Amino acid sequence: MKKTILLTVVLLSGLTSFAQSNDEKNIKSFYRKALTDSKCYMWLEYLSNDIGSRLSGSESAAKAVQYTKAQLETLDLDKVYLQEVMVPHWVRGEKETAYILDNKTKTVVPICALGSSVATPKTGITAEVIEVKGIADLAALGDKVKGKIVFYNRPMDPENIETFKSYGACVDQRYAGAKEAAKLGAVGTIVRSMNLRLDDFPHTGNQSYGDLPKEQYIPTAAISTNGAELLSESLKNNPSLKFYFKQSCETLPDVLSYNVIGEITGKEHPEDIMVVGGHLDSWDLADGSHDDGAGVVQSMEAIRILKSFNYKPKNTIRVVLFMNEENGTRGGKKYEEVAKQNKENHIFALESDSGGFTPRGFSIDADDANLKKIQGYKDFFEPYMVHSFTMGHGGSDIDPLTSKTLVKVGLKPDSQRYFDYHHAANDKFDAINKRELELGAATMASLLYLVDQNGIVLPASN
Amino acid sequence: MKKTILLTVVLLSGLTSFAQSNDEKNIKSFYRKALTDSKCYMWLEYLSNDIGSRLSGSESAAKAVQYTKAQLETLDLDKVYLQEVMVPHWVRGEKETAYILDNKTKTVVPICALGSSVATPKTGITAEVIEVKGIADLAALGDKVKGKIVFYNRPMDPENIETFKSYGACVDQRYAGAKEAAKLGAVGTIVRSMNLRLDDFPHTGNQSYGDLPKEQYIPTAAISTNGAELLSESLKNNPSLKFYFKQSCETLPDVLSYNVIGEITGKEHPEDIMVVGGHLDSWDLADGSHDDGAGVVQSMEAIRILKSFNYKPKNTIRVVLFMNEENGTRGGKKYEEVAKQNKENHIFALESDSGGFTPRGFSIDADDANLKKIQGYKDFFEPYMVHSFTMGHGGSDIDPLTSKTLVKVGLKPDSQRYFDYHHAANDKFDAINKRELELGAATMASLLYLVDQNGIVLPASN
Repeated sequence: MKKTILLTVVLLSGLTSFAQSNDEKNIKSFYRKALTDSKCYMWLEYLSNDIGSRLSGSESAAKAVQYTKAQLETLDLDKVYLQEVMVPHWVRGEKETAYILDNKTKTVVPICALGSSVATPKTGITAEVIEVKGIADLAALGDKVKGKIVFYNRPMDPENIETFKSYGACVDQRYAGAKEAAKLGAVGTIVRSMNLRLDDFPHTGNQSYGDLPKEQYIPTAAISTNGAELLSESLKNNPSLKFYFKQSCETLPDVLSYNVIGEITGKEHPEDIMVVGGHLDSWDLADGSHDDGAGVVQSMEAIRILKSFNYKPKNTIRVVLFMNEENGTRGGKKYEEVAKQNKENHIFALESDSGGFTPRGFSIDADDANLKKIQGYKDFFEPYMVHSFTMGHGGSDIDPLTSKTLVKVGLKPDSQRYFDYHHAANDKFDAINKRELELGAATMASLLYLVDQNGIVLPASN
Repeated sequence: MKKTILLTVVLLSGLTSFAQSNDEKNIKSFYRKALTDSKCYMWLEYLSNDIGSRLSGSESAAKAVQYTKAQLETLDLDKVYLQEVMVPHWVRGEKETAYILDNKTKTVVPICALGSSVATPKTGITAEVIEVKGIADLAALGDKVKGKIVFYNRPMDPENIETFKSYGACVDQRYAGAKEAAKLGAVGTIVRSMNLRLDDFPHTGNQSYGDLPKEQYIPTAAISTNGAELLSESLKNNPSLKFYFKQSCETLPDVLSYNVIGEITGKEHPEDIMVVGGHLDSWDLADGSHDDGAGVVQSMEAIRILKSFNYKPKNTIRVVLFMNEENGTRGGKKYEEVAKQNKENHIFALESDSGGFTPRGFSIDADDANLKKIQGYKDFFEPYMVHSFTMGHGGSDIDPLTSKTLVKVGLKPDSQRYFDYHHAANDKFDAINKRELELGAATMASLLYLVDQNGIVLPASN
């Protein structure tokens, strides 16, 4: 208790010539709190093990809304509320089946339908397979695609140290592969899972038919990396083998859901808003403990840490648990829409949506002046081994957000293991390390604190 | 193939004004090789899943010697040989049993004997328990210890970002706890596992009776962290409860074993030796995939990477797979003994013995000039997110090594998860991530290369 009071005094006493030293002490207190007295791991255990997967429109997504709202209400924030948003409601249906039909030999392979895909006919689809390394290969094939299943098999590049780079260079196959193959008359598409290792988990993810007429939609699924290797090898031996798959997914009418929001009102500039958040929805194959249960509970923990020291922010700090990042980003879009209606001024947004691994730094989406300003905080993070302050993407949920001057930042955890779990059935609570999760939350709280204390750089014209 | 030839030309063409740029290119090639065409993961799979745990003196340790020697022989090194070393041969015997006896309620708890502990009597030991936070508490207790089981229950401090610091501040309870309690007449000791999380795995590790007369040896074991919490809680409710444990471990006569050594002879200074290594032995509870299978295969991979580019080192580069780090460090001591006999001059030693996790930097044991020199290489490692170049311990196996001027370095992987597995039954192959392992190997190869190219700083008097 004594510690809390001391810190509060420091925080409220204003930043004088001892500013840096006080900031250092406060940041140390945030890390101590996270590592010795956190709630995020317990929250995530409940989200993962008691509620489970949280695909938009599902009953469990609704439970997650109620649970996180109730937990935020225990934190003595100034406001906690829900923001209505209509979300897509896609359901997987029965477990998919697939096999390679090589002469008379059937070899079962693990697949899963991609989000928003249509079903196959009830008896499934059987067709010859045409393997490509990407959408660009299709044009040259022309008529050969007709009546076939297109198999996109470009692997993620293992050479990149930051694995998201490899994901970005591959994911067009998943997102737009069906649409492009359908235009050439393919009957279905199978895409190699976005996974850097060889295993038996198919990884789902969103896809879009774009402006294709509905009658041209074709079913599309991901195959595990081991399955992709086997299919490719089998095709080398027998290019006229057939592939069978069956899935019964469908898109139901939109459902009312919610963003979950809590805030501490700013004492000096209540009109200037700083957001910290992650997304509450997950894919349906597992509990989404890394994607993005981790980001949700870290965002809650970050605001809990500040609140636990009775920190009175200059600006309004708002935790936002966005709905529907995975298949629509409707939560992020709705949040921006309402912010615009209310003429809110957002100055800062911090998202955690890259897994609950050891924090390595920040990915900063800002103009030069603000990039430099954030990079100027590096020394504060050195004791916590948070080193990498680079320009980059902030996060999908905060992407739609616009304001005159707005700094967007993504927490950058170690990315080596992320795609082992991403959108797959093994993204479960046992893949989470408590300390790594807590370190991320403390890192977020610390950046929120520094930005709140020091503001952002406004353009000269302001 | 073309790539290999190009690189070789670069490497052999000498370092001119383009030195830095060539070094950058070569290091990039090392990382590429590790991430796209490594053997370390496959080697570790064999060591872990086919050979298994490798406690000194065991049959499987002998198999590991033969396997790694055979694998080194495929690398076309200049020499591969075994170095004889007599090692202790402690065996666990039957699985231990333990329970808390609270009035008439028996609650079974997971324990494991500590390395080199003696057995309990065949019927086990039952005694009252005295809980302490460390050895320092014993003195004040005096006679109260007599006839009791001393329960050392000081947890690892979660506040340290680098978890080895917390280990260092706790491990005296395990290493010297039995000896100190025996002096005061305790009949046994139980130590809380060196583990930052709460789980059901007891963690073994070495202990020493020091110069205590043999007849005063008392049995000692580790209890899982959950078990420790339960015992502590139970003692609060009933200080006179009893604890029962039974173990049948024993120390057999020493066994002939080996360090496994391979080398590329230096072209300019064959007499100057650079060592890269890890330890081949492990504890017996699991496969020792992190401790230290990872370090073994990373060391092999580091020399394989250099060799694969036909790199001709200036100095002799020697991979050493040390035997018996866990309970005697006899391999490290023997290696130093032979080096001294042969008047070998070691200039550099690099050990990997902190787990196969994402590499974060190096722990450097050197004089100021050499510390600065190694820190001067930081920029080369920036693209690989290897940032932390701090003074610290090199490694237990290279500790005994002495030479006029010798720089010792430990690879520093991310340490958050290390003590989840350390010396416990879950230190298995499935806890290893292939990319993290490979990144460590590339990091080691790169430092070996830079030190070989640029030498070390000799004292002015030389």
